[in-house]
Amino acid sequence: MTILWIFFEVAGTIAFAISGALVGISRRMDIFGILVLALSTAIGGGIIRDVLVGNIPPNSFKSPLYIALTALTTLIIFIIYRQKLLNYRSKQKIRKYYLVADTLGLASFTVTGTTIGFSTYPQYPLLSITLGLVTAIGGGIIRDILAQRIPSVLQEEIYALPAILGACVYLLIANFNLFLAVPISFLAVFIIRIIGIYYRLNLPKVN
Amino acid sequence: MTILWIFFEVAGTIAFAISGALVGISRRMDIFGILVLALSTAIGGGIIRDVLVGNIPPNSFKSPLYIALTALTTLIIFIIYRQKLLNYRSKQKIRKYYLVADTLGLASFTVTGTTIGFSTYPQYPLLSITLGLVTAIGGGIIRDILAQRIPSVLQEEIYALPAILGACVYLLIANFNLFLAVPISFLAVFIIRIIGIYYRLNLPKVN
Amino acid sequence: MTILWIFFEVAGTIAFAISGALVGISRRMDIFGILVLALSTAIGGGIIRDVLVGNIPPNSFKSPLYIALTALTTLIIFIIYRQKLLNYRSKQKIRKYYLVADTLGLASFTVTGTTIGFSTYPQYPLLSITLGLVTAIGGGIIRDILAQRIPSVLQEEIYALPAILGACVYLLIANFNLFLAVPISFLAVFIIRIIGIYYRLNLPKVN
Repeated sequence: MTILWIFFEVAGTIAFAISGALVGISRRMDIFGILVLALSTAIGGGIIRDVLVGNIPPNSFKSPLYIALTALTTLIIFIIYRQKLLNYRSKQKIRKYYLVADTLGLASFTVTGTTIGFSTYPQYPLLSITLGLVTAIGGGIIRDILAQRIPSVLQEEIYALPAILGACVYLLIANFNLFLAVPISFLAVFIIRIIGIYYRLNLPKVN
Repeated sequence: MTILWIFFEVAGTIAFAISGALVGISRRMDIFGILVLALSTAIGGGIIRDVLVGNIPPNSFKSPLYIALTALTTLIIFIIYRQKLLNYRSKQKIRKYYLVADTLGLASFTVTGTTIGFSTYPQYPLLSITLGLVTAIGGGIIRDILAQRIPSVLQEEIYALPAILGACVYLLIANFNLFLAVPISFLAVFIIRIIGIYYRLNLPKVN
Repeated sequence: MTILWIFFEVAGTIAFAISGALVGISRRMDIFGILVLALSTAIGGGIIRDVLVGNIPPNSFKSPLYIALTALTTLIIFIIYRQKLLNYRSKQKIRKYYLVADTLGLASFTVTGTTIGFSTYPQYPLLSITLGLVTAIGGGIIRDILAQRIPSVLQEEIYALPAILGACVYLLIANFNLFLAVPISFLAVFIIRIIGIYYRLNLPKVN
């Protein structure tokens, strides 16, 4: 179980780092800017989460794993794009794996955030849901702010909804069985998101 | 007094939530994005304030009142705009009430922030003034950053000045009489802001 | 030594405040907006640093020196630009002094941030480097976000690199000799940045 979990978090971190790096490249940033966007996306949400519950210093600085993983991912993406190592067809093929990794990240980050909230302040369910959501989507929002675009999660696709519902599922189950809460809420986020992608679902807008 | 205070905070929260929701709608966000902008505006300033003084977790997560109120306000605004329930004339009529509620929010949030600063660290007056200001205008700044526009409070109208002056009034009086400080600084913010609106005052610019 | 250090920090604060105020003026902000941008640039990075290590309330609020210095700088810049007291030639002449003061700020803020990290959590070197970097460039990033432009540090010039390298130099030396670490890392940041300006160096981009 623990090894599976680390795999999920690593896959999520890599996917989030890729999404940040690609936005940085699209904004013609230099290698430092691309790294900052990758780091913001991959660890930014977790830092806000830790600040909100007083977990100081934030987890991302305690183990070099996630920062190193993000830096390595950034470097590889930078070389691939600078050397034009991928043609359009290869990018389309990779896209499917990217979406799966991103969804693993969405699910594992949601569960991590909700777990930290529930184990620290079980009496405040809205805090736990917020922490799950912030861990999952906070980094992407910082990425978009730094790149000067309206955060995509606020405008399109079913991206935040799976995280919110997954956090609710976690809290409902955790009161009865803490160990079942993790895998079931993880699956809830994953499945809802995949259904959203498959059917190209969007949340309602005013017009 | 306490009931009156809750009324002020509730009116302010609703007004701030409305302002966030309307900006979200104007940016063609989906219902989740609109909710995030309403929440940022209504509780964002208070969260920054609590993080700055180590009040962990922030107050907004301890009682469901303000988040629930903001969610409900967002839902009503969403339905009103989606169903086009208001014509131009009705919107103009409501505008006056909105401005009063917004000014009640500006005043009560300023006083709340300054009070928290003064009661926690009375030895740092600049901190108390900053907390009053951040509680009052921080949420609106986050709203504008998320909506990709220069924060309106930095460019036009007398909006921050009443908060700064009100916080100073609070500190001046609080050293003599803590109970008088609240209503007098509240009135100071309210009156200065209303005068600013009435005479369409602006702060000086370079040209 | 201590007096020299205060001189560096004061020079840096003034330079950072000027850069914030000028961006505010260029965005046609009012005097309050200009002040907020000056304050964000001068003390914003230090506030994030203090929040990340639980140094509550942040240092900037404990002594009125830096806020007062920033406010005074803002006022002088505002008057100079409103009264058009400087012609193009004078501005060009002053630019050289500005760059030196800005580089003093970059160097002293980097060293201050790294020192706080190393003295609080010596076991987390990535945290110390991040704190050095955030103290030095965090304020400029907030300034650019508030002014609705992509943070310049992510796109051009050698600005963050000297801070990162300086923080690494600090950590390498601090393990042997804490007192040598400060001046040598300070010089490292200063010299690398000056070389970068002189040779108009840029970090690599994708194309």
